Amino acid sequence: MTTRSWWGWGTVEDAVTPEERRALADRVRAVLPDADLTFHEPPDPMSLDVPESRIQPPGDLYSTGLIDRLGHSRGQAYRDITRNLAGKVGPLPDAVARPRTEQDIVDVLDWCASNDVAVIPFGGGTSVVGGVEPRDLDRAVTLDLQHLDRVLEVDPTSRAARIQAGVLGPSLEAQLKPHHLTLRHFPQSFEFSTLGGWLATRAGGHYATLHTHIDDLTESLRVVTPAGVSESRRLPGSGAGPSPDRLFLGSEGTLGVITEAWMRLQSPPVHRAGASVRFASWDQAVEATRLIAQSGLHPANCRLLDPAEAFLNAGSPHSVLILAFESADHPVDAQLARALELCGEGEVTEGASARWRKSFLRMPYQRDAMAQHAMITETFETACTWDRFPTLHASVTEAATTALREVCGIGMVTCRFTHVYPDGPAPYYGIYAPGRWGSLTSQWDEIKAAVSEALTNAGGTITHHHAIGRDHMPWYERQRPEVFNTALSAAKAALDPSGILNPGVLTTQSTAGSTRR
Amino acid sequence: MTTRSWWGWGTVEDAVTPEERRALADRVRAVLPDADLTFHEPPDPMSLDVPESRIQPPGDLYSTGLIDRLGHSRGQAYRDITRNLAGKVGPLPDAVARPRTEQDIVDVLDWCASNDVAVIPFGGGTSVVGGVEPRDLDRAVTLDLQHLDRVLEVDPTSRAARIQAGVLGPSLEAQLKPHHLTLRHFPQSFEFSTLGGWLATRAGGHYATLHTHIDDLTESLRVVTPAGVSESRRLPGSGAGPSPDRLFLGSEGTLGVITEAWMRLQSPPVHRAGASVRFASWDQAVEATRLIAQSGLHPANCRLLDPAEAFLNAGSPHSVLILAFESADHPVDAQLARALELCGEGEVTEGASARWRKSFLRMPYQRDAMAQHAMITETFETACTWDRFPTLHASVTEAATTALREVCGIGMVTCRFTHVYPDGPAPYYGIYAPGRWGSLTSQWDEIKAAVSEALTNAGGTITHHHAIGRDHMPWYERQRPEVFNTALSAAKAALDPSGILNPGVLTTQSTAGSTRR
Repeated sequence: MTTRSWWGWGTVEDAVTPEERRALADRVRAVLPDADLTFHEPPDPMSLDVPESRIQPPGDLYSTGLIDRLGHSRGQAYRDITRNLAGKVGPLPDAVARPRTEQDIVDVLDWCASNDVAVIPFGGGTSVVGGVEPRDLDRAVTLDLQHLDRVLEVDPTSRAARIQAGVLGPSLEAQLKPHHLTLRHFPQSFEFSTLGGWLATRAGGHYATLHTHIDDLTESLRVVTPAGVSESRRLPGSGAGPSPDRLFLGSEGTLGVITEAWMRLQSPPVHRAGASVRFASWDQAVEATRLIAQSGLHPANCRLLDPAEAFLNAGSPHSVLILAFESADHPVDAQLARALELCGEGEVTEGASARWRKSFLRMPYQRDAMAQHAMITETFETACTWDRFPTLHASVTEAATTALREVCGIGMVTCRFTHVYPDGPAPYYGIYAPGRWGSLTSQWDEIKAAVSEALTNAGGTITHHHAIGRDHMPWYERQRPEVFNTALSAAKAALDPSGILNPGVLTTQSTAGSTRR
Repeated sequence: MTTRSWWGWGTVEDAVTPEERRALADRVRAVLPDADLTFHEPPDPMSLDVPESRIQPPGDLYSTGLIDRLGHSRGQAYRDITRNLAGKVGPLPDAVARPRTEQDIVDVLDWCASNDVAVIPFGGGTSVVGGVEPRDLDRAVTLDLQHLDRVLEVDPTSRAARIQAGVLGPSLEAQLKPHHLTLRHFPQSFEFSTLGGWLATRAGGHYATLHTHIDDLTESLRVVTPAGVSESRRLPGSGAGPSPDRLFLGSEGTLGVITEAWMRLQSPPVHRAGASVRFASWDQAVEATRLIAQSGLHPANCRLLDPAEAFLNAGSPHSVLILAFESADHPVDAQLARALELCGEGEVTEGASARWRKSFLRMPYQRDAMAQHAMITETFETACTWDRFPTLHASVTEAATTALREVCGIGMVTCRFTHVYPDGPAPYYGIYAPGRWGSLTSQWDEIKAAVSEALTNAGGTITHHHAIGRDHMPWYERQRPEVFNTALSAAKAALDPSGILNPGVLTTQSTAGSTRR
């Protein structure tokens, strides 16, 4: 058994050890000799001044206990962690409901609608965009789906399974394993996030190319809304009107509560081939990556790291492309060989891939440890077409560098591609800068705003796979077509007439009975 | 220059020749010696009793000419052709508008909304589901986008182009060719259907696996709605809320008029490999096809024909799987070899593929020629998961056979897979039966209803790629989640408050100012 950290990423047991933390701090000190890297312990949660619950919900579905409410008050963004570390209690849900059946969910929605209480659907709580925070709400219940965690039915012929939305990644895979099937959807949050969360936020997964967004792995959805239960047919493909599932995918709990999904599965891979390639220049590396993305080779892994990212996390001061192919059916060596041909003058290099993978899994823990030393380490992600990438990259890098200089005096910006498509990459930016203890959240907000502005102006999306939540709303409002907002707001008003579902996310239109201030 | 047939498929020049027609009739006569195969000429369109236009639209965008109105009064379904052949004039649009600019479209929508006139967006007019027919409408304008037919912009780096919705398939490919790019979306209607039509109906294309639905080839959409113009960002992937494009894809002209799209393109294939495989049994063939669909080999072609279909259209009395691989980047022989391994005891056979391809392109023309001999020859298509396919297949085959026996005394049912997915096939049924001249439409309607009932009850979709239109509405209403209908109707009411856009399709809710009876 492990214990979830009340203030930071993951489990207490897996957190960075004092030795690992000191080594990290030493590395930072070597680069930033003037930074104040004093170490800060998190406060005792029992010492925090937590407001009383403002509601008295019926029955035993609800908990109003302090630790429950505190543990459901925000997600796992850097700004969430720094507020926790500073002991800054924000808005808390007034209760946490833990349904055991779909009927329980119907009952919670009914009670909340009748009592003008907002409902925030909650999976693993790893939102990095303020998606589960009861910000600006008068009264709110967090609906934690943790008990709906079973694989209910497996169809080995079609390779699909009916799965409850509250299941965490590892449990989902463990339940599929006896059937020799796997979803192979491994976002960085895999251990602590749920199927329902992935669906509600259009999560991006393991594969760097082809079917990686959870959207494409979805066969059908079951959703409880205040207007009734929606269940789509299991269909491998359909042209019957606009896709019902695509309306709920990415709806972030604003249209209904996803309770079950039939998901498309795969056989576990048995053939693998991989290599890392280093390039003399970033531009060369980007070009090679584009060719591979457009080749139809479909590598499972095609992560491009810029020299800064490769230096920090893969032990190489070059642009490095990490390539891997996998198949449950046939050898993939020929595909790797062809991809390497497309790398032109890039040179195969050893070890980068394994080092990268190790770093990747430790990153969220390291971010928290560094925050305790007042370091700002966070990420921005987007996607754009290949033709726009050079401009977007220059503009975002410049905006981030300037913001770091203005806010922190100094800082470092890195870039990698998490996913690549034939028509464009999904660039992921990391920033590293010395913050000021006591001001980390506001410093972060300033940097975040500057970079979000730059990537929105450059034609990117405000999110490729982190969702909108509350933190991305200003930029989402500029990105989405206004006509689509009109349609989505009308759909929301029809499905959620009391406006109780995750208010403040996606649509901002006020609806009758809304609890939004 | 060629002339579109006023009553049947395609061009007058490409229609079945008298010799081809007689040969077909002889083949039928050999199987059905008792059938009355008298040949019937279509009526002179000028002799038809066509009601006067009920509106007087302003300006020179509109035509109220008889041939224009007749040519836009229905699509190309069997029931459309037989009504034409019988000289049965149905509801006609009161005018045909041919916009030259987006502003023209805005003007048409404005005038129609102000004057309580329905608007039916019209691409190539090849709907086989009553999608462009002004059925049960008091006053209607058909909006023919034929002048919006240009590729406006090409992005060779991202392999994408901005394309006007009214372009026909061949013109689209011709405009892309100088850029060495192709959309490679080749529905059977390719020659006579438009990009806008494909998008509005979620058309299925050339590829038998992977990215074949037009949805997946769409990078962004521009749509004129009564509530304003919607334009989504060009993004290779995004997790920013529910996809705006997926709301308009499949909306069949009910939410707005698609005017432009950025489409994902490809380099033309240079590597090809293909083979046809015959199987001792249908079940063996289905199993091999499933294994290939789940292998990750992604054949471009993977059409399975049952013995009846293969006999009629590929000259073989066996279940035949037509396989082809293609790539613009790398040889595909290894993929073919592996696919053939997965065919187990299937035997490679020669010539079936070429014969099939030739038949495929002639099918719509042959259907019309046979209708002139009072033969009923039509198709039903669906999709379902692999586990459900045996039951669905038995049930649909039984329903079709029974209906043919009851309605026509005798008949033949064939099946092929047009597309295959890892989780299921898209089966496509053909029927061939001797009809009764003068009753062909009602006979067809009775058969269509029986089969639609069977496939809906068996868990299939009422359409994989033919759309809903007006003909599929009774079964679509059972298939779609009612909650989704609530959302979609609300979205429609918000974007089209006067309810002028293609009333009677997809949503049936009456809205203020609707012209529906």
